[in-house]
Amino acid sequence: MSKVLVFGHKNPDTDTITSALSYAYLKQQLGVEAEAVRLGEVNNETKYALEKFGFEAPRLIGNVASEAKEVILVDHNERQQSADGIEEVKVTEVIDHHRIANFETSDPLYYRAEPVGCTATILNKIFKENNVEVPSNVAGLMLSAIISDTLLFKSPTCTEQDVQAGKELAEKAGVNLDEYGLAMLKAGADLSDKSLEDLLSLDAKEFTFGEVKSVVAQVNAVDVNDVLNRKDELVSLLNKNVADNGLNLFFFVVTDILNNDSTAVVVGDAAEAAAKSFGKELVNNLVELPGVVSRKKQIVPVLTEGL
Amino acid sequence: MSKVLVFGHKNPDTDTITSALSYAYLKQQLGVEAEAVRLGEVNNETKYALEKFGFEAPRLIGNVASEAKEVILVDHNERQQSADGIEEVKVTEVIDHHRIANFETSDPLYYRAEPVGCTATILNKIFKENNVEVPSNVAGLMLSAIISDTLLFKSPTCTEQDVQAGKELAEKAGVNLDEYGLAMLKAGADLSDKSLEDLLSLDAKEFTFGEVKSVVAQVNAVDVNDVLNRKDELVSLLNKNVADNGLNLFFFVVTDILNNDSTAVVVGDAAEAAAKSFGKELVNNLVELPGVVSRKKQIVPVLTEGL
Repeated sequence: MSKVLVFGHKNPDTDTITSALSYAYLKQQLGVEAEAVRLGEVNNETKYALEKFGFEAPRLIGNVASEAKEVILVDHNERQQSADGIEEVKVTEVIDHHRIANFETSDPLYYRAEPVGCTATILNKIFKENNVEVPSNVAGLMLSAIISDTLLFKSPTCTEQDVQAGKELAEKAGVNLDEYGLAMLKAGADLSDKSLEDLLSLDAKEFTFGEVKSVVAQVNAVDVNDVLNRKDELVSLLNKNVADNGLNLFFFVVTDILNNDSTAVVVGDAAEAAAKSFGKELVNNLVELPGVVSRKKQIVPVLTEGL
Repeated sequence: MSKVLVFGHKNPDTDTITSALSYAYLKQQLGVEAEAVRLGEVNNETKYALEKFGFEAPRLIGNVASEAKEVILVDHNERQQSADGIEEVKVTEVIDHHRIANFETSDPLYYRAEPVGCTATILNKIFKENNVEVPSNVAGLMLSAIISDTLLFKSPTCTEQDVQAGKELAEKAGVNLDEYGLAMLKAGADLSDKSLEDLLSLDAKEFTFGEVKSVVAQVNAVDVNDVLNRKDELVSLLNKNVADNGLNLFFFVVTDILNNDSTAVVVGDAAEAAAKSFGKELVNNLVELPGVVSRKKQIVPVLTEGL
C-alpha cells in the first residue's frame, strides 16, 4: 500500500494542523502508512501549540496529485478549500465538523462528520472506537485544537461534547486547561506588534446591505487596548479607506476572545444607522457589542436587517 | 422538537426499509421523536423479513416537505434517489455505505458513511457507541439487511465487519443465520410465478460496446432452473426483442445467488463474440459464468473490453 496523505484546509488554523498530525498518528497505529502534511503557513497560535508539545510543523505540499494517490481530509471537505489537484486523487476518508458542499466521490468512503465545535472532539471518539490510547503529546495537540476552535469553550459553536473532550485531553496532556488555553490564545491574538494596516487587511469582507456599500472587518484580541489605544489613528485610516473606495460604512470589530465581547470602530455616512441596528448610539465612533463574537452569526444578520 | 422522519431510497430494498426502522428505534431510545417512513412499495424479500420479526411496513410518504422540517437519510444520499421535496427540508443526519454525490447542506450535520456491505453493519456500531442494547426483533431486521445486501456474505462488496455483525445479530435475534438467510433470499428470488416478459423488464439496461448495440439484463434466482427450464421460449422472446429493437446483442444473465455463479442466455449477431469476451464458447445460446454475480463489476467491463 502506498502512502496516504492527511491534511486540513488552506490557510490552516490550529484544528487543521493538529488534526492532520493526530489522525495520521492514529492511522499509523492501525498499520496505515500515513503522513500529515499542510497546505499553507502555520500561524502563531499553532506554532505555540506545536512547540509546547514537541512537534514539528507538517511538511508543506503544493499540488497533491504529484504527491500521492490517496488522501484523507480533516477539518474540511469543500473542493475550493482543499489541495490543488484534489480532483485527481482518491479521497478515502473525511473527518470534519462543517457542512458538506462541493464534494463528490466515485466510490464508497469513510466519512465522519459531526455537528460539534472541533474536529479533535470527533478524533477523540475515533481513538476510543479503535481502542488506541491517546499519548500525552497528541492529547496536547487535540486539546489545542478544541481551545482554538471554541475560544476556550466560549464560542456559540461549542458543544457539551467539546467541553468534555477538552477536560479529558487536558488531563492526559498534563496541563492546566485554563492556564495553557489562555497562553495559547494570547500567542495567536497578540496584536501589539501589528501595524494598523496589517489589522485592516487581516480579515475584511465586503458586503452590500441594501444600498449601503460596506466592509465588515474583524480582529481577535486578548487585550482590545492593543487596538483601541490607537483609535484616533485607526479612525483616520478607516475614513481614508471609505473615501478611497466609495464606501458608506466601515465596521471594524475588535473581539475580546477571553470575555466574549466586541467593540466596533465605525465610520462612514451609514455609521449612525449601523449602530442603531444594534439598538445603540455611536459615541466617538465606538459601539460596544457585549456577547457578540461571530461576524457570520451575530453581526452580518443584524446589519442586513437594520440597514 | 417536531418529528424527524427517517427513510432510505426510492425503490426500497431490505436494507433501506429495515435501516429506517432500526435507526428510528435507536433515535427514540435517545429521546428523539423519530418516525420511519418509506418512499415506495415493499418487495417480497422485505415483506418476509418484516413478518418474521413482527413489524409492519413503515408508512408510505409522497412529498417530504409537506410531512416534516427535518429528516434523516439512511442507505443513500444522492438527491435523485431520495424523497421528492428533499431540497426543501433540513437533512440532520445521514447513515450510508455508498459514494457521496449530488448532496449538499447549508449547515453542519451528522454524516456517517463507511465502505462496508450494508447500512445495518454501521448501525450496529452506532447502537454500541450510544450504549443502547439492540432488542431481539430489531436485531432480526438488521440481520435481514446484511443477508440481503451481501447475498449471505457472498457478494464482492461484503467485508469482515459485515460478517461479524451478521453473526452477532443472528445470535441476538435467536435465528440460525444460514437457515433464515436462505429462506429470506428464497422469498425474494422466487421466480417460478414470474412470466418471461416480467423477467425481461425487471432489470434490463442498454449499452453500446463499440458498434455493438446491446441490452444486458439480470435476474437473481435461488433456483436458476425456474428460468432455464423455459430456455427455448426465452430465446425466442430475446430474438424477437433483438429484431424489434435493432440490437446486435441481448445478454440475459441469471444469477444463482446462493452459489455465486451466473448463466447467461445470449442471442444476436454478436452473441459468439460476447461469449469469447469471457474466453468461452456459446453452446445452445448459453454461457456459463462461474463466480460472476455483479453486472457492474464483472460483466459490463468484460464486454466493453471484448467487443
